Amino acid sequence: MAKKLWGGRFKKETDKEFFEFQKSIQYDYKLAEFDIAHSLIHTSALANAKIISGKEKSKLHKALKKIESDIKKGIYHYDAQAEDIHTDIQNKVQNLIGSLALKMHTLRSRNDQVAFDEKMYCHFNAGKIAQFLQDLILSVRLLKSKYKNVKIVGYTHTQRAQKVLFSDYLGAYECMFERDKKKIEAFVKGLDIHIGAGALAGSSIAGNYASAIKEYLKGKKGLKIQISVNTLDDVSSRDFIIDLLNILILIQLHLSRLAEDMILYSTKEFNFINLPEEFCTGSSLMPHKKNPDFLELVRGYTGRVYGNLSAILTMMKGLPLTYNRDMQLDKEPLFSSVEIVSSELKIMANLIKALELNMTAIEQALEDEELDAVEEAEEMVREHGISFSRAHEIVGKRIARKK
Amino acid sequence: MAKKLWGGRFKKETDKEFFEFQKSIQYDYKLAEFDIAHSLIHTSALANAKIISGKEKSKLHKALKKIESDIKKGIYHYDAQAEDIHTDIQNKVQNLIGSLALKMHTLRSRNDQVAFDEKMYCHFNAGKIAQFLQDLILSVRLLKSKYKNVKIVGYTHTQRAQKVLFSDYLGAYECMFERDKKKIEAFVKGLDIHIGAGALAGSSIAGNYASAIKEYLKGKKGLKIQISVNTLDDVSSRDFIIDLLNILILIQLHLSRLAEDMILYSTKEFNFINLPEEFCTGSSLMPHKKNPDFLELVRGYTGRVYGNLSAILTMMKGLPLTYNRDMQLDKEPLFSSVEIVSSELKIMANLIKALELNMTAIEQALEDEELDAVEEAEEMVREHGISFSRAHEIVGKRIARKK
Amino acid sequence: MAKKLWGGRFKKETDKEFFEFQKSIQYDYKLAEFDIAHSLIHTSALANAKIISGKEKSKLHKALKKIESDIKKGIYHYDAQAEDIHTDIQNKVQNLIGSLALKMHTLRSRNDQVAFDEKMYCHFNAGKIAQFLQDLILSVRLLKSKYKNVKIVGYTHTQRAQKVLFSDYLGAYECMFERDKKKIEAFVKGLDIHIGAGALAGSSIAGNYASAIKEYLKGKKGLKIQISVNTLDDVSSRDFIIDLLNILILIQLHLSRLAEDMILYSTKEFNFINLPEEFCTGSSLMPHKKNPDFLELVRGYTGRVYGNLSAILTMMKGLPLTYNRDMQLDKEPLFSSVEIVSSELKIMANLIKALELNMTAIEQALEDEELDAVEEAEEMVREHGISFSRAHEIVGKRIARKK
Amino acid sequence: MAKKLWGGRFKKETDKEFFEFQKSIQYDYKLAEFDIAHSLIHTSALANAKIISGKEKSKLHKALKKIESDIKKGIYHYDAQAEDIHTDIQNKVQNLIGSLALKMHTLRSRNDQVAFDEKMYCHFNAGKIAQFLQDLILSVRLLKSKYKNVKIVGYTHTQRAQKVLFSDYLGAYECMFERDKKKIEAFVKGLDIHIGAGALAGSSIAGNYASAIKEYLKGKKGLKIQISVNTLDDVSSRDFIIDLLNILILIQLHLSRLAEDMILYSTKEFNFINLPEEFCTGSSLMPHKKNPDFLELVRGYTGRVYGNLSAILTMMKGLPLTYNRDMQLDKEPLFSSVEIVSSELKIMANLIKALELNMTAIEQALEDEELDAVEEAEEMVREHGISFSRAHEIVGKRIARKK
Repeated sequence: MAKKLWGGRFKKETDKEFFEFQKSIQYDYKLAEFDIAHSLIHTSALANAKIISGKEKSKLHKALKKIESDIKKGIYHYDAQAEDIHTDIQNKVQNLIGSLALKMHTLRSRNDQVAFDEKMYCHFNAGKIAQFLQDLILSVRLLKSKYKNVKIVGYTHTQRAQKVLFSDYLGAYECMFERDKKKIEAFVKGLDIHIGAGALAGSSIAGNYASAIKEYLKGKKGLKIQISVNTLDDVSSRDFIIDLLNILILIQLHLSRLAEDMILYSTKEFNFINLPEEFCTGSSLMPHKKNPDFLELVRGYTGRVYGNLSAILTMMKGLPLTYNRDMQLDKEPLFSSVEIVSSELKIMANLIKALELNMTAIEQALEDEELDAVEEAEEMVREHGISFSRAHEIVGKRIARKK
Repeated sequence: MAKKLWGGRFKKETDKEFFEFQKSIQYDYKLAEFDIAHSLIHTSALANAKIISGKEKSKLHKALKKIESDIKKGIYHYDAQAEDIHTDIQNKVQNLIGSLALKMHTLRSRNDQVAFDEKMYCHFNAGKIAQFLQDLILSVRLLKSKYKNVKIVGYTHTQRAQKVLFSDYLGAYECMFERDKKKIEAFVKGLDIHIGAGALAGSSIAGNYASAIKEYLKGKKGLKIQISVNTLDDVSSRDFIIDLLNILILIQLHLSRLAEDMILYSTKEFNFINLPEEFCTGSSLMPHKKNPDFLELVRGYTGRVYGNLSAILTMMKGLPLTYNRDMQLDKEPLFSSVEIVSSELKIMANLIKALELNMTAIEQALEDEELDAVEEAEEMVREHGISFSRAHEIVGKRIARKK
Repeated sequence: MAKKLWGGRFKKETDKEFFEFQKSIQYDYKLAEFDIAHSLIHTSALANAKIISGKEKSKLHKALKKIESDIKKGIYHYDAQAEDIHTDIQNKVQNLIGSLALKMHTLRSRNDQVAFDEKMYCHFNAGKIAQFLQDLILSVRLLKSKYKNVKIVGYTHTQRAQKVLFSDYLGAYECMFERDKKKIEAFVKGLDIHIGAGALAGSSIAGNYASAIKEYLKGKKGLKIQISVNTLDDVSSRDFIIDLLNILILIQLHLSRLAEDMILYSTKEFNFINLPEEFCTGSSLMPHKKNPDFLELVRGYTGRVYGNLSAILTMMKGLPLTYNRDMQLDKEPLFSSVEIVSSELKIMANLIKALELNMTAIEQALEDEELDAVEEAEEMVREHGISFSRAHEIVGKRIARKK
Repeated sequence: MAKKLWGGRFKKETDKEFFEFQKSIQYDYKLAEFDIAHSLIHTSALANAKIISGKEKSKLHKALKKIESDIKKGIYHYDAQAEDIHTDIQNKVQNLIGSLALKMHTLRSRNDQVAFDEKMYCHFNAGKIAQFLQDLILSVRLLKSKYKNVKIVGYTHTQRAQKVLFSDYLGAYECMFERDKKKIEAFVKGLDIHIGAGALAGSSIAGNYASAIKEYLKGKKGLKIQISVNTLDDVSSRDFIIDLLNILILIQLHLSRLAEDMILYSTKEFNFINLPEEFCTGSSLMPHKKNPDFLELVRGYTGRVYGNLSAILTMMKGLPLTYNRDMQLDKEPLFSSVEIVSSELKIMANLIKALELNMTAIEQALEDEELDAVEEAEEMVREHGISFSRAHEIVGKRIARKK
């Protein structure tokens, strides 16, 4: 085990299996850059409060920015023996500048850090997902315009219903993704990133945060950080994660339906679309197979993305205020859903761009005269003045006789 | 079985067990008043389109309004043999004015009706829940002001942490419910209630809907209804239900935490609050028991409210466009969650109003000097200039020695 | 509110909204006959312990059996103002024989009653489900023998893979339902129905239960009841409900896959099967529609049956020992899943019996030569001694050229 | 990308992002040793069928066993560019012995391999979990015997109810874990490990498997492997995974309740137990804190273990027969739950062993005379012959007066 941020009160060494069980560095390293942001602001506040000197602050900032730069270059590697990302960053600062690093954690609690880090993570990743949605919407629009005026069979109950424009069919998905995008943009806009909640009861240096935040935000657009309003709420709540996962389950749901439609339409029996080969795989036994693997995996991941929300909801159920260690377990489900949905959106946008309709099969299906049954009944109503109910029966009976 | 809205094409009678299995009247009767709204608008549109005469429209409207008035009086009773609410309303109209009722369903699909009805249900019930939240917030504020300046023990990990103001503790719940209220108000505002999607492909009389809607909305404030924009999306999507349930799970989560806190604080061991007797029950065996049943049920219902969302999400997963019969099963979970959360909020507001702190026990707990450990360490930092890390260790060791 | 089983300690009247919120009679009335069984045994034990006289016991038994007989005749109606089924039965006994009824609850707790009642419910309903599974298996076997030696297209990834026997395809479902049946039979066999746990600490008359149970069981085959072994476990645990729901989710999963296959095969595009009309419904707008509604509802109910398990699991999570009121909420999900799965199995058995293959479409599909690609590659291996890997590539390339 | 097991039919290169998205080596490497078992049996069968020579088989077996030995030594490292474990093993064999490795996959499908591998994984890991349960049960028994005859307060509704023996209280958990152990042992015993299903339609060399299996099993006790009975079922079904996860959710549920009890009992307010320090952690801000982190994480992981089951159930819902790529996503949830529950059981057994009761606080709580209210009422019944209902009221009123 690497050096810990606590321990004075403890006479016994932490049990080794328990230490392994409880550490989070193997996943919360993904918060590294956001944890550094917290330290930059916090050390500025400590300097403002005269708890550390201006010179100490400079040294600390320099070390923190060195690590931040390593992260951006992709050469930051976490120490697997560190308890968590907060510990790892502090230890790395200590490696760079010695025991001054120990002052970094003055009057600070990991309860505040982790909430801040996760909000920052959500802010940036939700922003990216909004962009991926936009790219997918553009792909859908491209496909719409490529097949403008093309009619296809519209289905209800997976049974042929009525003719519809392909662009209206695709438009339904466009509507879904537009709603998703609107929601995720509203999420980013409404997300309150707070700092300064302490363990639960705030911090005696809260008054020194305002200018520290201002200093940090200089030159950073679209990002707002504020001093904690209700400190107990800040360390207790994971609403913002549930808010984001609530949007991701909808994106995932929409993707699963699009995937299912394409799996169906790419069967030899429907045969309405040609799936681009580069998004399919083959069989190790059957040489002829071209399987819609991407689409199946998208459909299958629905379980995971739902399950991730479910895991966090169940975990949070009935937790007494304020912070409880259970809440550490919010990270893996959050990261998992963000990464799955991001990948799916990116690949789906490319697949849609390359999709082709098989016009021969579509035109053949459109010849099915049952697709005009509503129009036929409507005509009876308009021309013969009978009730729709009666016309419906007449047409229905005629069709049944043919079977 | 009562008369059905379909059947011309069918040679065989519906299987009896299957008919029982598939009918929805036993729960979708809750949509009765909204289904009448659809019929009022639709028959106006039919008249605008000259498919029925002005006189026919008047007769139909009169019958529909008679039934609407019965619903409001609480004397509407559904026919358990009717397939669904759409069928039941039509049959009731037929009972009142004869076969003219059959014209009501001209060029209309239940796919459109049910989406419209459910959106109306969500609109009105979400509005009510916003009000219940407001009432609860007021109760919380009342309690805050009753115990202004009172300090209590703040907890992390269910272990004593630091002293906090009771009003800040309650303020954390106020923050949660305020967020919930903001979300549900945004939901109501953003909900697009569409009409005219037909089965999936719209309706040839769509052009006649605009003035029909206007006629219906006359004098109704805060309600917007629009003609379907993408008809396939309208009959396929249940996003609006998931949106609402996404908010309800958060309300439920917050209630479950408040419940847990109060269950804990009302144990003889904590003893910080006196639960109002009228929200407790006793034991049939143990004469001394006063159990926090309401709070336990609130905590327990979390499973149901989560499960209801989960049921709809799983049901919608991978459904091909457009409407599928699976989607009928969205109603029971929706109604269940709306009813549970509404009841909980109403009762919780009353319980909070009647809650009393047990000041003796609270003051005794506050004497625990460990609650000042942070301040002690901070003082060392400020006065002796040692690092917080070192001060933390010194205080920790001192406390450990005492055990 | 009807008379309650507790209240001496309470000075204030129960809040009306809370009373409505907490009562369970509207669903736990389904336990009526099992609750009577508990009372029959308990009053025998009371007589054995000389707490009531033999004559009192006789009177009580007579009244209880009168109510039991009403239940069986379907003329028992619960009082909607009673708190729960235990209260309702006691009140009904009091209506029949007066205040002697009050002795019925001597040294008894509803915590014991409800666990006993639910175990009895599970015992009998699991037994019925085993029978429904058996009926479905017989239907599947019938269909297998009807189409013995018929080949169909086998699918992986919803893409044509290899030819398989229809009887092997159906055999896969037979395997699933056989496993389910084995599990549910093991559940019935392994279910320990205990009595005598009291509120949590057992009962001073536990020693008098043995002969009371024996008296009750006389003439009842296949039912075992035992005195509680660990009384805290008995009132705390709902493992038996989760055990049953764990089996029901598997049955439901299997049914959902069978339903999906049949939905697919009954599309006009696949067209491999003719769904019996009596299990389909039509459209209120489109006269030509014959929709696979039963199958869609089965697929859709998967969400509910999963959600019911999820609701109970979440509800039970982290509950401190022993009984908590949260646990009352186990009933609705249990009853819901039992009823849904029972109906589905019964109707599915009838649908399968009436199912017909569309041999023309099947034979046409079997002509697709890609279905023989594995055999082709295997032949190359056997005749030309090349590696399978190479043969796979050769056949794959040949097929690709044809596209 | 490393060499793939398919591709002849494909003209275009797999999309890079899609390849990353779909590969499974980063988690299915955990199946390495079981995949080798499949290859050992399969190559024996190929030799039996004269498709490869005895010499070729020997070379292949030698290479496979070399890799197996590397796995056991912990020096096997997967190639992150390989698609999956099947590909990685084949490529590693090819590195060792050249193109002969290509014959290994003759007439074999990954659909068969992965089902076999996962069943083997479940077999061995379920066996280990049974042992961990046994260890925990022994710890519980040790603690029982350490505090034999000690009474504690028994709770219902988290309110003091009646006195109970500590050994009975612990006995309730013993009952739970005994049930779990019985279930998991039955799972291991009932698990059918099949081989030879091919892609879905079996294998032309199925007849050659029997002796190959026998050869493999020589000297391996407690393991049974059989030739596939219904090949479509074998590649379609993940029942065995759900069966195992069904047991794991129960173990997890029981652990969460035990954790909750101990979290409660280790508060300063209850103070009934002293948690061994080596399973707790401190706060980075509050020097006095000793938090029950292990217990909180156990409670929190309940969300994950439930969510993992839920993910697989949702993923499997309504999948058409037979294999679909969605099913690849069963592995991460399975591995996750197995690993979490295994760690929890191991650490919990050690924590329980080191647990100490705080007798002072317990004895003080036992002085609460309300704990004898049932006995008091019972005495009235026995001595004064009044009904229990009346006695209950009298005692209840007396207690209420004291408040």
